[in-house]
Amino acid sequence: MNDIANKTQPPYYAVIFTSQRTEDDNGYGNMAQAMVELASKQQGFLGIESSRDNQLGITISYWKSVDDIKSWKKNSAHKVAQDKGRKEWYENYNVRICKVESEYSFEMFS
Amino acid sequence: MNDIANKTQPPYYAVIFTSQRTEDDNGYGNMAQAMVELASKQQGFLGIESSRDNQLGITISYWKSVDDIKSWKKNSAHKVAQDKGRKEWYENYNVRICKVESEYSFEMFS
Repeated sequence: MNDIANKTQPPYYAVIFTSQRTEDDNGYGNMAQAMVELASKQQGFLGIESSRDNQLGITISYWKSVDDIKSWKKNSAHKVAQDKGRKEWYENYNVRICKVESEYSFEMFS
Repeated sequence: MNDIANKTQPPYYAVIFTSQRTEDDNGYGNMAQAMVELASKQQGFLGIESSRDNQLGITISYWKSVDDIKSWKKNSAHKVAQDKGRKEWYENYNVRICKVESEYSFEMFS
């Protein structure tokens, strides 16, 4: 379960970020890694899950509250990354703020 | 924006399905495609987004209501797929039922 975010019991919040990238890296990989590290230090951060294939990238970050999400959106280093994202890295993206109301899981060998 | 789900205005609901696969296909690809087609015919279905890389698969389906999600979970053909999923296809998975409270998007060339 290494790549599935640790989380608390619902209710908590999820930010679903879906995106289609431009072709060139232009520093994207380094910035993406830096943003994950920075996000993980923010108040209320619970975890992050990410997957990208040729069609679509999906990143979901989990937070204790909507206020935590708003604070992260306003973080100054994150705002620089968001600006570069719109100018260079993303053809398009969509952000959804969600309240996680329930969850369940399965593990084959547990 | 072909691969980003069409959706109505919030509030609506999202099912975040994160998974780690077993190594063999064992009919997984065909079943996954069939389940997307079947889901899209269910009442309240709004769209689906999916991405899988070597680490993690993320599929998010969008629905008008929690009742629509419950009906889809109980669908008989879907239950057969869920059962095979636990026996053959997934090392582990996690399902989160979420209320989408707000969203915004960006498109580079719009």
